[in-house]
Amino acid sequence: MSDERSPFTPRGSTDEVEEGPALAPKFDADGLVVCVATDTRSGDVLMVAHMNAEALRRTIATGQAWYFSRSRRTLWRKGESSGHAQRVVEMRIDCDQDAVWIKVEQAGGAACHTGRRSCFYRAVPLGAPAGAVTLEFRDAEKLFDPQAVYGNKS
Amino acid sequence: MSDERSPFTPRGSTDEVEEGPALAPKFDADGLVVCVATDTRSGDVLMVAHMNAEALRRTIATGQAWYFSRSRRTLWRKGESSGHAQRVVEMRIDCDQDAVWIKVEQAGGAACHTGRRSCFYRAVPLGAPAGAVTLEFRDAEKLFDPQAVYGNKS
Repeated sequence: MSDERSPFTPRGSTDEVEEGPALAPKFDADGLVVCVATDTRSGDVLMVAHMNAEALRRTIATGQAWYFSRSRRTLWRKGESSGHAQRVVEMRIDCDQDAVWIKVEQAGGAACHTGRRSCFYRAVPLGAPAGAVTLEFRDAEKLFDPQAVYGNKS
Repeated sequence: MSDERSPFTPRGSTDEVEEGPALAPKFDADGLVVCVATDTRSGDVLMVAHMNAEALRRTIATGQAWYFSRSRRTLWRKGESSGHAQRVVEMRIDCDQDAVWIKVEQAGGAACHTGRRSCFYRAVPLGAPAGAVTLEFRDAEKLFDPQAVYGNKS
């Protein structure tokens, strides 16, 4: 991109951050905000990931979801390996501006690296007797073969 | 609670964590997982917060949302000050088990401390020319007066 002027404003008072029109994200000690991606059609949560300032800037500028990998310490565009890109239909920011919600069109219909539509394919039973719980698989069909898509890159 | 046996299993291999039935959360360096709460009726994201092991354990045991405040360094039950509790209808955990999604019934209809239904009451315009962006208020009606509910407690 030729023009890289920042979309961000320095953080002001609590009232300015919560009630004002300026985008003033609160990046954490690692320079990140949390991002929740939901499916624009079903409304389901597809994944939760992180964005650093550059990922957030690129997502705003391009309408494609960019994230920052905490484990690999790298910026990545969703779908750059798998082809399963996310087109951002709407972006919201929360009251204290440390979390972002994006509603996306998920290419290939599957957001999770395991091949599932959503990363949240297991339910945690509630109110069970104390002790280890057993997760219940839900909507856990694999829409692609991760080995075929990612090869050995897990 | 009289019985406090842990619902958690030690983390195993990637395959066990991603494809297995054991709840083995990956708490970060601060001992936290991210939690996304959505409205069970509208599907909208209400808030994003964090849970430590105890908040997660209590939420599972009681079906009421408990969180851990990073700023106050305290465990809190959603609604303990405001009365706006969250009854958890379903809990999901993601592939690598470092994020939780809860679908909740929001008491009072408002999750945000500013009085709004959701914390995500401002949209970030996409694809705008570079430079500072102007947030757009959406669904930003205040359903309660935070001053009346919280008094001087921010």
